[in-house]
Amino acid sequence: MKVSIIGATGYGGLELLRILTQHPYVEIASIHSDSVSGQEVAALFPHLKRVLKLEQFEEVDPDLVMCKSDLVFLATPSGISKKIAIPFIKERFPVIDLSGDFRLPTKASYEKWYKQPAEHEAYLGEAVYGLAEFKEKSNIQLVANPGCYATAIILGLAPLIRQKLIDPNMIIVDAKSGLSGAGKQLSVGSHYVNVNDNMCVYKVNQHQHIPEILQQFQKWDQNVSAIQLTTSLIPVTRGIFANLYVKPKEPLTEQALHYFYKKEYERKHFVRVQEMGCFPNLKQVIGSNFCDIGVTYNPVTQLISVVSVLDNLVKGAAGQAVQNLNLIAGFPEETGLNMVPIYP
Amino acid sequence: MKVSIIGATGYGGLELLRILTQHPYVEIASIHSDSVSGQEVAALFPHLKRVLKLEQFEEVDPDLVMCKSDLVFLATPSGISKKIAIPFIKERFPVIDLSGDFRLPTKASYEKWYKQPAEHEAYLGEAVYGLAEFKEKSNIQLVANPGCYATAIILGLAPLIRQKLIDPNMIIVDAKSGLSGAGKQLSVGSHYVNVNDNMCVYKVNQHQHIPEILQQFQKWDQNVSAIQLTTSLIPVTRGIFANLYVKPKEPLTEQALHYFYKKEYERKHFVRVQEMGCFPNLKQVIGSNFCDIGVTYNPVTQLISVVSVLDNLVKGAAGQAVQNLNLIAGFPEETGLNMVPIYP
Amino acid sequence: MKVSIIGATGYGGLELLRILTQHPYVEIASIHSDSVSGQEVAALFPHLKRVLKLEQFEEVDPDLVMCKSDLVFLATPSGISKKIAIPFIKERFPVIDLSGDFRLPTKASYEKWYKQPAEHEAYLGEAVYGLAEFKEKSNIQLVANPGCYATAIILGLAPLIRQKLIDPNMIIVDAKSGLSGAGKQLSVGSHYVNVNDNMCVYKVNQHQHIPEILQQFQKWDQNVSAIQLTTSLIPVTRGIFANLYVKPKEPLTEQALHYFYKKEYERKHFVRVQEMGCFPNLKQVIGSNFCDIGVTYNPVTQLISVVSVLDNLVKGAAGQAVQNLNLIAGFPEETGLNMVPIYP
Amino acid sequence: MKVSIIGATGYGGLELLRILTQHPYVEIASIHSDSVSGQEVAALFPHLKRVLKLEQFEEVDPDLVMCKSDLVFLATPSGISKKIAIPFIKERFPVIDLSGDFRLPTKASYEKWYKQPAEHEAYLGEAVYGLAEFKEKSNIQLVANPGCYATAIILGLAPLIRQKLIDPNMIIVDAKSGLSGAGKQLSVGSHYVNVNDNMCVYKVNQHQHIPEILQQFQKWDQNVSAIQLTTSLIPVTRGIFANLYVKPKEPLTEQALHYFYKKEYERKHFVRVQEMGCFPNLKQVIGSNFCDIGVTYNPVTQLISVVSVLDNLVKGAAGQAVQNLNLIAGFPEETGLNMVPIYP
Repeated sequence: MKVSIIGATGYGGLELLRILTQHPYVEIASIHSDSVSGQEVAALFPHLKRVLKLEQFEEVDPDLVMCKSDLVFLATPSGISKKIAIPFIKERFPVIDLSGDFRLPTKASYEKWYKQPAEHEAYLGEAVYGLAEFKEKSNIQLVANPGCYATAIILGLAPLIRQKLIDPNMIIVDAKSGLSGAGKQLSVGSHYVNVNDNMCVYKVNQHQHIPEILQQFQKWDQNVSAIQLTTSLIPVTRGIFANLYVKPKEPLTEQALHYFYKKEYERKHFVRVQEMGCFPNLKQVIGSNFCDIGVTYNPVTQLISVVSVLDNLVKGAAGQAVQNLNLIAGFPEETGLNMVPIYP
Repeated sequence: MKVSIIGATGYGGLELLRILTQHPYVEIASIHSDSVSGQEVAALFPHLKRVLKLEQFEEVDPDLVMCKSDLVFLATPSGISKKIAIPFIKERFPVIDLSGDFRLPTKASYEKWYKQPAEHEAYLGEAVYGLAEFKEKSNIQLVANPGCYATAIILGLAPLIRQKLIDPNMIIVDAKSGLSGAGKQLSVGSHYVNVNDNMCVYKVNQHQHIPEILQQFQKWDQNVSAIQLTTSLIPVTRGIFANLYVKPKEPLTEQALHYFYKKEYERKHFVRVQEMGCFPNLKQVIGSNFCDIGVTYNPVTQLISVVSVLDNLVKGAAGQAVQNLNLIAGFPEETGLNMVPIYP
Repeated sequence: MKVSIIGATGYGGLELLRILTQHPYVEIASIHSDSVSGQEVAALFPHLKRVLKLEQFEEVDPDLVMCKSDLVFLATPSGISKKIAIPFIKERFPVIDLSGDFRLPTKASYEKWYKQPAEHEAYLGEAVYGLAEFKEKSNIQLVANPGCYATAIILGLAPLIRQKLIDPNMIIVDAKSGLSGAGKQLSVGSHYVNVNDNMCVYKVNQHQHIPEILQQFQKWDQNVSAIQLTTSLIPVTRGIFANLYVKPKEPLTEQALHYFYKKEYERKHFVRVQEMGCFPNLKQVIGSNFCDIGVTYNPVTQLISVVSVLDNLVKGAAGQAVQNLNLIAGFPEETGLNMVPIYP
Repeated sequence: MKVSIIGATGYGGLELLRILTQHPYVEIASIHSDSVSGQEVAALFPHLKRVLKLEQFEEVDPDLVMCKSDLVFLATPSGISKKIAIPFIKERFPVIDLSGDFRLPTKASYEKWYKQPAEHEAYLGEAVYGLAEFKEKSNIQLVANPGCYATAIILGLAPLIRQKLIDPNMIIVDAKSGLSGAGKQLSVGSHYVNVNDNMCVYKVNQHQHIPEILQQFQKWDQNVSAIQLTTSLIPVTRGIFANLYVKPKEPLTEQALHYFYKKEYERKHFVRVQEMGCFPNLKQVIGSNFCDIGVTYNPVTQLISVVSVLDNLVKGAAGQAVQNLNLIAGFPEETGLNMVPIYP
């Protein structure tokens, strides 16, 4: 199978290169970026020297891509993907989009949260939300690959919400991200001196992943009406660390709680539920496609707390995109995704 | 005024040295540590060379301390302080204890949370909880200096709980600490390789600061029965970053919320409420005695979220201890504590 | 004494504010920055809230400054200072310039290393190189405050070069800097993701501090013709860590080597020579005005190696500038500079 | 091919697991560690859950190993390996030892640098120094896998020393390591608080890698008599960053210098010489088996400076060990070692 990557110079695109280089059934046919088209890969990204067979970035030309490949990854930012995707959608050429542009089905929702004009709803409606562990269809042309926070949070609460075990009006998420989640763009907030030995919140109650999380939760329990989401930056390069606080409708035992999680995920390879009393740390997933989850019940406050961690560039972006490719192509879900976490 | 420091080699003790060296009315008469008594300060702590007039650590000898000084700081760990404090208490010699040993008035509570035998309740009852901003008495012999998490959390919610504005059964705290909070002890969890680029939770719902927080909240609102406290480690040296989630009894406006905070803290120099829409980052307080607080109301979820940050070694330990000394001695509260945060 | 600071929003300027706020004989009369004139200090720099009496930044107006103050600090970047300084120089108003604009006496040298046009040599010749430990004149109008690398390197080798003990043609410096040394400007190289867990060299053999180091060495030993200087970035916020390799003209003993250093610096408060066999780490100086030096002789290779460390924003910039102010004003050299290093 | 790993719980052993899990021709037959024998892999190392087929650590039993496998890796520390290796050596069973125990051929040298008794020289003489790029023999029973500093330094200077282009008495190395290089042992120096935002030197002129570097250099140029090696710790988890300073016997051009490096390494896959004017940063090799080298000549000082970087756990340990396995087994050198560096 041949694939192309558009937007191959961003963190998501580079991670696709890292992963796909090891995929046994995929060949990277071309990599595209208007800003560096014609330039040498190894000169721009010395870590890729002698690693990638392709030598140059090409310009973004959909016809060329459709000619060379069987599927295209859009690793372009929200706002850019929606424009690039159209010719592919029209030709019903398979697209996996890593941006947020096709995750929300209505123009109104997109424009509220992304603060820019949306694509036609006809196109938005074509997209399937690509949360790989819970995907319903396999005959898919356009995958909207989920956001990194969204993946950690949805996987973290799925067993509880699918079983309607919790108060749908009390979902509190305190989520932390490493700096690669914010992309390559230069800003005061990404300057080393402002990040090192520091921590800050941003977009409090405003993060654009809120609606995609809600929409998935509502598929499982219509009564979920809102979530409280605090997003923050911690001084690490990669990783999402989400603390989730919810209230069970009825008191339950630690054992019962674990049972629901174990049962939901025992056959889902990339979600590893921790043993009772154990919580995951961030490093145990970095570099891999795993989402690790720990959960406990506090009988004093009658609250459940969940810790859900993943590598934002792998399970939260490029890894899940390859998982989606595997599902579309009919490859076993884990193909090319068996990277061991980098520890230490 | 002459003071001695027992346990001067730990992070709290070293920070007392840093602060008191600049205090205009205090002279450090002696520094004590059984493990290094007789050794040179500059050899053990090269950063103190040419800074401290005292040249040697002395053994821990209460009679000697009472002879040399007017007040003693116990910068010893919980479990040690309670033994060292007795002779001072018996002589009614002023003690400021930075450990947790005298923060809880009952043996039962101490033994439950600290998992070791408590001192006689007669002594425990002598202690005054030294949350400097809300201290009721000034004629004090024994100050139990508050914990770092406790200070951030109590100051973060005081305006709401004192006014009984929130549901007393829904207090959720997601708190993060830098590694100096865990002290100098070597452990797998403090090895650089396990902390760098990582994050983890620990003592979930079990942290020993829970009872001192509850006890203070209950003084203000008897109906507060429990808090959900998650404590975690982030890869920074200093700092507490506490996210607090509470539910107002009745919906309120952002303006009203800010008004309560501004009013409570306008005359409390070391608590700086941020402007509406602004949240503090960690670095804006590091090295200083400030606790900075940001607060917002989410009309969608009807929850209030508060961010409260401080330097665990200053406002969360040595700085607040000096603030307590100022109160005891009748010095202006800010004396010797006007250090500017280290930025960047 | 009243002072003004121009360029008060950069790291050097902010550090001047931190230090001068504690200086007993200095009042900060005004702070200037064209880019934020009229804006509130606390809004831009929340760490300064309740710390600084001044509330606003003012525009850069030399007449106003000369009216309000007795001395001005230029904390502006190289290339900017030279323009701002002229009206002050013409009025013989005291200036301490933290940039590189007045460190080199000839236009040719400045233009070669700074790659931009120099000021008139008449003005350049007015300046005195402000290496505080070795300043010759006290009647000074215009101080060219030394660079951070330069201070660490010159102090690190002064005892050997002043005594002409080493081969003047074999001076190798491997110097590392924290990110605050590169200033606030946003660049790919200062993005957190490119700095964290990374290290890189830059400006190899090209750093603009080379000529000011050479010029000082040549004052002491005319035979010094060149130095090999590698500059690199390590993932820390503050600090210069310089490893220096030189060859003694004749073999010497470790004892003799230490004797030269101890003798040179025993009365220079801010240079702390480590005991034999000990080398300084970076953290033992951070936040303070100390330059700490360790030195050893390797009889196998017959080379001397020196480690010289300092805080680039204090001894390498604002601290040394205040030291120069003290010298100019006739205050004791250490006035306002007795900050204890922040440890841990 | 079946292999066993003894000492599988250290950083080197864990990295062998990460790499060998992806090796197409190797099966990990057993993993051994006396300290945790019988314990579950996933409980001790949650990152390995669902990754490793083996479920338990076994005790260290050479007979068992020889029964189960075709080759054994000793990932045990120096001092331990020498004892464990003997039964394997006696049986002429293939051993790849990652420690320093078999790198030096004479007892005297080992005992001087490692400060402990050496094995019999008969055994020491059996070992082949496994610098994979320059290995002379293929029929090998016992490989002494090189040290991490040694690999970076030897590869960094090989083109110059092999051609006898430089002054053999002026080799200065300023080398930095991440903390994983020091192993898992707890020490004051590896506590997060002492490493974060800090840098220090250690074992100045005393590092035990000095003799193995010298011995390799002397094979190429008998006149090399000594090197000046400063080793230091920088706040990163992985990586060796070595700056090398040497003097060419005769002045040369930048072009000639590059030619020697390009020629030496054009067919050595894992050594990537950077383009003229470019130097590698650390992150471009982390997670991979590459050693990246940049080089330049300074006509002013007539010195060559080289920057050589690698991942201490991969090319500096486990990766090179697998490279040696490939050479022994006759697999193509790159088999299982084509991991893309983790960037960012």
